[in-house]
Amino acid sequence: MSRYWSSLVHRLTPYVPGEQPKLSNLVKLNTNENPYPPSARVASAIADELANGGALLRLYPDPGAERLKEAIATRFADAGITAQQVFVGNGSDEVLAHVFMALLRHPLPILFPDISYSFYPVYCGLYDIAYATVPLDDNFAIRIEDYKSDNGGIVIANPNAPTGCFLPLASIERLLSMHRQSVVVVDEAYVDFGGESAIALINRHPNLLVVHTLSKAYSLAGLRVGYAVGQSELIEALTRVKDSFNSYPLDRLAIAGAVAAIADREHFEGTRQAVMRSREALRGALLELDFEVLPSFANFVFVRHPRHDAGELAAALRQRGILVRHFKLARIDQHLRITIGTDAQCAHLIEALQEILH
Amino acid sequence: MSRYWSSLVHRLTPYVPGEQPKLSNLVKLNTNENPYPPSARVASAIADELANGGALLRLYPDPGAERLKEAIATRFADAGITAQQVFVGNGSDEVLAHVFMALLRHPLPILFPDISYSFYPVYCGLYDIAYATVPLDDNFAIRIEDYKSDNGGIVIANPNAPTGCFLPLASIERLLSMHRQSVVVVDEAYVDFGGESAIALINRHPNLLVVHTLSKAYSLAGLRVGYAVGQSELIEALTRVKDSFNSYPLDRLAIAGAVAAIADREHFEGTRQAVMRSREALRGALLELDFEVLPSFANFVFVRHPRHDAGELAAALRQRGILVRHFKLARIDQHLRITIGTDAQCAHLIEALQEILH
Repeated sequence: MSRYWSSLVHRLTPYVPGEQPKLSNLVKLNTNENPYPPSARVASAIADELANGGALLRLYPDPGAERLKEAIATRFADAGITAQQVFVGNGSDEVLAHVFMALLRHPLPILFPDISYSFYPVYCGLYDIAYATVPLDDNFAIRIEDYKSDNGGIVIANPNAPTGCFLPLASIERLLSMHRQSVVVVDEAYVDFGGESAIALINRHPNLLVVHTLSKAYSLAGLRVGYAVGQSELIEALTRVKDSFNSYPLDRLAIAGAVAAIADREHFEGTRQAVMRSREALRGALLELDFEVLPSFANFVFVRHPRHDAGELAAALRQRGILVRHFKLARIDQHLRITIGTDAQCAHLIEALQEILH
Repeated sequence: MSRYWSSLVHRLTPYVPGEQPKLSNLVKLNTNENPYPPSARVASAIADELANGGALLRLYPDPGAERLKEAIATRFADAGITAQQVFVGNGSDEVLAHVFMALLRHPLPILFPDISYSFYPVYCGLYDIAYATVPLDDNFAIRIEDYKSDNGGIVIANPNAPTGCFLPLASIERLLSMHRQSVVVVDEAYVDFGGESAIALINRHPNLLVVHTLSKAYSLAGLRVGYAVGQSELIEALTRVKDSFNSYPLDRLAIAGAVAAIADREHFEGTRQAVMRSREALRGALLELDFEVLPSFANFVFVRHPRHDAGELAAALRQRGILVRHFKLARIDQHLRITIGTDAQCAHLIEALQEILH
């Protein structure tokens, strides 16, 4: 308690990110980072921006990062996306924060699944937004029929985290049509590992906003770039909030690196295919060890063992230098979320589990 | 108007940053950027972080940027500052946004000068904070005696923008003692050009928070790094808000570059001294052209001409490829804010003005 704090600060329950250990030599399968490096074009574009001893750094970046918006629009040209339909931010966490403030703060509560990205209720706390959670079914799937009530907006992570389950676009489209009066946010942080993007639906649905990150499939968690795509009416709200918060959220190097990453389709394809192949191999190996493994459309698997406590398994793995994520939350406290590593890291994990289980 | 927008969005009046033209060949004296490049150590540290083709970028940055907090604490070791007394963010604009949310949202209105950084009322609009402005005196100086009313906090830019006037630390200390019940934020974006930092007062005043940026004296506007220094009770409030907004506001390259910039004291000293020398020379030349020039402690001068309209002067300079900042605001619509450029740029400005005035 402090007399200096705004009253809201006392009530906040901040988000707790997965551990970022300072030790090396750990096998880090706890924060869904990509095991492969980003496109070589990223470092090269950043080096170009740093030419002449970094002289350009003395100048503010383009406040609208128009070059990056153009690159994103070009990538989704098939869906008819223009730069005016793109909003960019300092990681998709910042983008989501502005989305909650700009588009989800209404008299009616917003809806999201009871098991999903745990930052959603944190944003609601920050901006005093009422919310109701909708339970996933017994197989951890989202059932559109359960999202019938009037609401101030809906947030769906698709694929969902930490389950990895994917909701087909037909279901998303049904949801959009059921709730034309409110914004439906589809958070597609993991969509590139086997899902299908709702960006294809943007120009048919004025209430749809799709959020992406470069942290996962583009291997750029360390560069902090995310974006949202939607019709320009929604983008304008985000821009108004952003310009009331920080005019220049993306630094020069992040803009240059992100543009280069998006342009390298070949590297992107190679990386995501490799992660998906490793995921299926890992799933097979975990099933052989009697784990229950949800089919995953993300760069992680969500597993439980019928005879071993999840917390104890996570601790035993940690002792062997392997980090996985264990959420001490209702319904999933016996599950572990394991990021897909390189094949060598996956093999190391399986060996460690064999040792622990036998 | 949009049914999808949160009601607040309709009421927002976003901040409008100075123009960032895409044309080169302009003499850009409109956004208070440093005319000199940053320390060469910055580009070199960023290149190190990019080693192995940018492989490290796949990993999230340290969410607390502890390395940078340590570097800032070391810089202010004379004032007894520790890393626990430092908060870092994506530019001082982001830091200020969190300050308004975390420490200035109280039942009583906050106070700031009627002429100051025009982002302050924008933050109040974003977070629904009541405020009252306190007029500068006729010489554009802040008078502490005018800040007597009970308040939810006080924000002072020191040196003030766009005036360049500096309030001595004794006055800041008097203000702190007058209002022990509320937080006094001293925004020192320009302090390194001749002012004296209130960081020296931190350990005597639990209600003091000082905000700095690397955009001006460190020539790093393009890297987006700012910070706040205060007792740990205030820093904790900022951290709680930040961890409810975006866990990783600083990317890996910004952290590496900022640490290197702060370590290079020699470059910092050389740059700020050069800017101050050029400022005094420019002030003399402008006085010779009959401009009224406020004594400045910043990297800009605030001027008016008794016989020429400020808007017309700005337009005439623009025609000659020189950008300066003209605020169409009460009391200062006949003033121009001119950033200190290199000596060559200042000479170019003076020549253009001679041409325009004669």
